[in-house]
Amino acid sequence: MPLPNRWLSSLLMRYNGRMFLVDCGEGTQIPLKLSGWGFKALDTIFFTHFHADHISGLPGLLLTLGNSGKTDPLNLVGPPGLKKIVESLIVISPNLPYPLHLYELPYVKNLGTQEEHGYPLCDQFFFRYSGGNHNIPCLTYSFEISRPGKFNPGLAKELNIPLLQWSCLQGGQTVTLEDGRTIEPHMVLGEPRRGIKLCYCTDTRPTSVMPTFFKDADLLICEGLYGDDENLENAAGKKHMVFSEAATLAKESNASELWLTHFSPALKTPSEFICYAQNIFVNTKVGVDLLSTTLRFVD
Amino acid sequence: MPLPNRWLSSLLMRYNGRMFLVDCGEGTQIPLKLSGWGFKALDTIFFTHFHADHISGLPGLLLTLGNSGKTDPLNLVGPPGLKKIVESLIVISPNLPYPLHLYELPYVKNLGTQEEHGYPLCDQFFFRYSGGNHNIPCLTYSFEISRPGKFNPGLAKELNIPLLQWSCLQGGQTVTLEDGRTIEPHMVLGEPRRGIKLCYCTDTRPTSVMPTFFKDADLLICEGLYGDDENLENAAGKKHMVFSEAATLAKESNASELWLTHFSPALKTPSEFICYAQNIFVNTKVGVDLLSTTLRFVD
Repeated sequence: MPLPNRWLSSLLMRYNGRMFLVDCGEGTQIPLKLSGWGFKALDTIFFTHFHADHISGLPGLLLTLGNSGKTDPLNLVGPPGLKKIVESLIVISPNLPYPLHLYELPYVKNLGTQEEHGYPLCDQFFFRYSGGNHNIPCLTYSFEISRPGKFNPGLAKELNIPLLQWSCLQGGQTVTLEDGRTIEPHMVLGEPRRGIKLCYCTDTRPTSVMPTFFKDADLLICEGLYGDDENLENAAGKKHMVFSEAATLAKESNASELWLTHFSPALKTPSEFICYAQNIFVNTKVGVDLLSTTLRFVD
Repeated sequence: MPLPNRWLSSLLMRYNGRMFLVDCGEGTQIPLKLSGWGFKALDTIFFTHFHADHISGLPGLLLTLGNSGKTDPLNLVGPPGLKKIVESLIVISPNLPYPLHLYELPYVKNLGTQEEHGYPLCDQFFFRYSGGNHNIPCLTYSFEISRPGKFNPGLAKELNIPLLQWSCLQGGQTVTLEDGRTIEPHMVLGEPRRGIKLCYCTDTRPTSVMPTFFKDADLLICEGLYGDDENLENAAGKKHMVFSEAATLAKESNASELWLTHFSPALKTPSEFICYAQNIFVNTKVGVDLLSTTLRFVD
């Protein structure tokens, strides 16, 4: 439940002027407003699953988006059941001035890495998902920005490619020159470089594929319903995790940083329990309202 | 929409240990928690209408009530459409540990005073409703506590009524004595005394029956979407009111006090506009989060 001093868990990402939200519980539009990024550029809302604390804020946000002047489509992405749930909830937010596009992702429990789906969002931004282990179908997400290799101006000059076409090639597009030649990006680019990877994992037990699915994440945002290990059985019974399990996932994934979120209302001061995570994975932060960062390419 | 510094409008009443809520927009459970009264004793939720800012917090509150240990029924009362709306919203709050009892009130536009309905809640507490004038069916409510006349011990002694029966008669019940006589309350009570009347009016234009419906209210809680009269046309177009219209209703109703609520998000500091109301009705307060009072019988 939303608390007077703690909003429900959600993630807002901004990339190239578009915004992407993961989960939208009751009240989520308030920290969204506090972010100062406006509403209009919201492109897609992803849902991990359909428990109320992850979707009950949808009807209100849809109306607020309508009032923000949004007219371009809003994408809603989630596990099976999305269509039924959204159609039910929007009885109180009818007549929106923009279209809703719904994408139900097939739920595959313990999806193997080889079978992971990658879906493009915009430019070099895409996402993958993997089934979690909760008491209803639940997805974990990986949001990734790929980064092409470095452009080699020497090679471009050798190939007599006009300057005008350089940026297309840099952006990964194949170009056809006036003389009929086709130039593919790999002909003028170095090896693909490390991109950015942000993983979001909540309302699930750890699964065997997670260390692979989250591999080398720049930031792993992971739930921890309870702080201490004494509550492990309690957390497991509710299909949740404790801090040390999240930290183990971060360690096994070789993540760069871990943020803990989705605390039980009974866990009044999560920061008191951070040692349970940091004993396993040092670079851990306990999530607080409006915690934010900028992820940049590592050069 | 809920704002970082202003919850959506709602009213929580407590009477004889039971609680009654009017409207439940997104986030309403947070100020409910801040009230410190707990959740479990919530008896009934009334809805003025089914725009999202008045009902979108329902699924989350229902779950929180479940977690509070509530097992006795929760009553939901509102205009036509209640059943359909509630059934849609509770797809995300299934398996509640208490029953929901739904009461759809017939919507009668501009209901005359004579035809007003009075429904008992508990003990001497009852409510009436009257149709408002909004762009969807909307109800205004009057919550009233009746107060029997003063008990006259002299009369009771003259009638040889045993002390044991006095409290039943005081409470308005008819008693049959051992000697076979039937004593009705009016035989030992003075004239009914002034009770308590609290009226709640939001998302409607003023209607011709309101001054009668709200007559002699101890407290009238009334919307004012905008503060200044320059926005009257704007407010009327949206089927809302400005402060001066709410104040005129309070004056014409001979209310004791007026609280203004349901401000437009564009109205950032409603208190700056209080003069528009106080010029007409002095005893006006601008609603703020958690504004509360105790209404007592006037002796």
